[in-house]
Amino acid sequence: MVLPVKLAAPREVEGVQLVTCAAGIKADSSPDLVIAKLAENTQCAAVFTKNSFCAAPVTICREQLLDNGGAVRALLINSGNANAGTGKPGYQMARGHCDALAEALAVPSNSVLPFSTGVIGQLLPDQAMREAIGQAVEQMDVKAQVADWQAAASGIMTTDTQLKLTSRTCQVQQETITITGMVKGSGMIQPNMATLLSFIFTDAAISAGDLDSALCEAVEHSFNAITIDSDTSTNDSCVLMATACGKSIKRDGEGWSEFTQALAELLLDLAKAVVKDAEGASKFISVSVQGGRSIEECKEVGYAVANSPLVKTAMFASDANVGRLLMAIGKANVVDLDPTQVRVSLGDVLAFESAGIASSYTDEKGMKVLAAEEIDLLIELGRGDADAMIYTSDLSHDYVSINADYRS
Amino acid sequence: MVLPVKLAAPREVEGVQLVTCAAGIKADSSPDLVIAKLAENTQCAAVFTKNSFCAAPVTICREQLLDNGGAVRALLINSGNANAGTGKPGYQMARGHCDALAEALAVPSNSVLPFSTGVIGQLLPDQAMREAIGQAVEQMDVKAQVADWQAAASGIMTTDTQLKLTSRTCQVQQETITITGMVKGSGMIQPNMATLLSFIFTDAAISAGDLDSALCEAVEHSFNAITIDSDTSTNDSCVLMATACGKSIKRDGEGWSEFTQALAELLLDLAKAVVKDAEGASKFISVSVQGGRSIEECKEVGYAVANSPLVKTAMFASDANVGRLLMAIGKANVVDLDPTQVRVSLGDVLAFESAGIASSYTDEKGMKVLAAEEIDLLIELGRGDADAMIYTSDLSHDYVSINADYRS
Repeated sequence: MVLPVKLAAPREVEGVQLVTCAAGIKADSSPDLVIAKLAENTQCAAVFTKNSFCAAPVTICREQLLDNGGAVRALLINSGNANAGTGKPGYQMARGHCDALAEALAVPSNSVLPFSTGVIGQLLPDQAMREAIGQAVEQMDVKAQVADWQAAASGIMTTDTQLKLTSRTCQVQQETITITGMVKGSGMIQPNMATLLSFIFTDAAISAGDLDSALCEAVEHSFNAITIDSDTSTNDSCVLMATACGKSIKRDGEGWSEFTQALAELLLDLAKAVVKDAEGASKFISVSVQGGRSIEECKEVGYAVANSPLVKTAMFASDANVGRLLMAIGKANVVDLDPTQVRVSLGDVLAFESAGIASSYTDEKGMKVLAAEEIDLLIELGRGDADAMIYTSDLSHDYVSINADYRS
Repeated sequence: MVLPVKLAAPREVEGVQLVTCAAGIKADSSPDLVIAKLAENTQCAAVFTKNSFCAAPVTICREQLLDNGGAVRALLINSGNANAGTGKPGYQMARGHCDALAEALAVPSNSVLPFSTGVIGQLLPDQAMREAIGQAVEQMDVKAQVADWQAAASGIMTTDTQLKLTSRTCQVQQETITITGMVKGSGMIQPNMATLLSFIFTDAAISAGDLDSALCEAVEHSFNAITIDSDTSTNDSCVLMATACGKSIKRDGEGWSEFTQALAELLLDLAKAVVKDAEGASKFISVSVQGGRSIEECKEVGYAVANSPLVKTAMFASDANVGRLLMAIGKANVVDLDPTQVRVSLGDVLAFESAGIASSYTDEKGMKVLAAEEIDLLIELGRGDADAMIYTSDLSHDYVSINADYRS
């Protein structure tokens, strides 16, 4: 069973060249290396995993961005190997690959950002990577300004089963700004970024500082509002690049709200697509928590529900198990939560109020809501004005199969 | 596949009468009601769930203990229905059942403690409970001082597949003190008590205050050191009763250390038995975290590993996936964790050090450790002297099956 990811087709972004090839990192010889070349005045902002064991490429990205101040010319992305838990040799190897790409593209050595996803604890195949980089750059020269978005979005995938690639546009003074993004990720997904590599490109001209502000805001309500299995990857990275080939916009200036809204919608589209393509997912579940004292406590309740194995298995079974929802809400660290003020609804069906099952509720009504592929849960805490949304998937036999078989 | 629970046979405890019957709460007519009658001078201490949606019986237990100061004469335990999320009607019904039992046994109304486990959000069958209570008490009078421990340990079970019942003894001034305990619980298990009802009886004479001190200490290293699915029940209760039929001991007096050691061993035996009987468990995993700055951070790392679905599915697959262990350690909230100081071992096999896979490590060595039914993981944080142990099970297809089928 698969939840189809339906996204608007991607649009070209001026100033972006993409080339995808098979470097031999993945055992099945499928594409596993993507190189992006970016126009000369590209600015960049990025957010990364908070995992203490962050991968070598994450460390290098942070160092490069400090050094280049956001002036990025190329991305070097591989799938099939995370280059995490690889110590100094892994770090040095990734540094070497960045240098090799910088040299081949004739761009500054500090302007290349590396990204990896896949198996943890193994070194990359050094020679194969170097050869593939050389060949890919030759191919790029020939193809000039063409970007094969589908190939790139496919080349960054690991256990993903569907492409997650789309665009949004906005109009600023009769000019169109395009934002095109791709993401990979379907497991090891919990806030502070999923095992998620996400690359977002826009043709607007925006400073690195303004990009950073827009990205942090958009990530908070998208990639930091999803969970599949509560596990946080060592490699999570989300990068926003502005190639400066189009319209120039500034924070809080004309067009800024249009741009940030389009960006937020794009990231939410992509984040929801990650959940729909979650390992073993047969349900897409939105947990809306309202009436909290703070966004933090709303998120805490939302995640307690969304990460509960007992809630997730009940959703898989289409079992309107209100008790497990109460259990999960109750285990969140919400100080002085008053159960008599809490209301829980499955879709439009009120299930729980006044510390007991709602008198109008029947299992039949609840089951009808849970039989659908997309399920909305509403939890009203009745103690404030804050709210939050969390998106998740169910826990199925396929999740266990995928993760008992796949070495990630 | 089942991990066998092997425990020493239970011993009689003077001052405890037990009767078990089928009240018709469970649909399959199996035993679901257990009544314990306790000697006149019994003292009692208890710890309960921290879930905000605690069940009616938990609320009543707390009220009764405040009222009776630990002078407890009877336990009223049912399985098949948790009497949680049942609001005022559920509370009043449970109060009524306690009063009915107190009257039938001719003991003070505030000396009865109720316990429930099973489906959440449904009212108990009031009339059936009352009739069963009456019949059980008649049966008890006839049998006098006999306690059928096996029947009682079986009568409190829900998704449990094995009896979890055992004893420990200690010698104080040539006299034997016996401690016998039973526990139910195999899912919805995470610290702050598992969905776990545990009843521990001793023939010693100990004040309620001293019992409380002994119980809290023993629970911290047993029932509060296990996790199956990170879910915390609404009904968790662990009760320690001293019937005062035997030797009198006092905190820090003669025999106290022997008693608390025997109690700690008994609770650890029972806690480990819960993990072995975990829903779908095929592996018993001990996570030892050493070298932390505090016990709290050691427990945090231990739980991050023990609750990680990706670690648990790897364990199910006997896959020595060191990368997932690193991911889980790294996602715990340990401030300034230095990956270069962390060492990870699978059994006796060092797998990770100096921020990379250990040079002596091979997948073959790791797989050999993980092929066993009992797996020891050792995580050395290298930043202090604190340590902690956490016990857990793997995540299998059977876990999903059990929880997608069972309405709990």
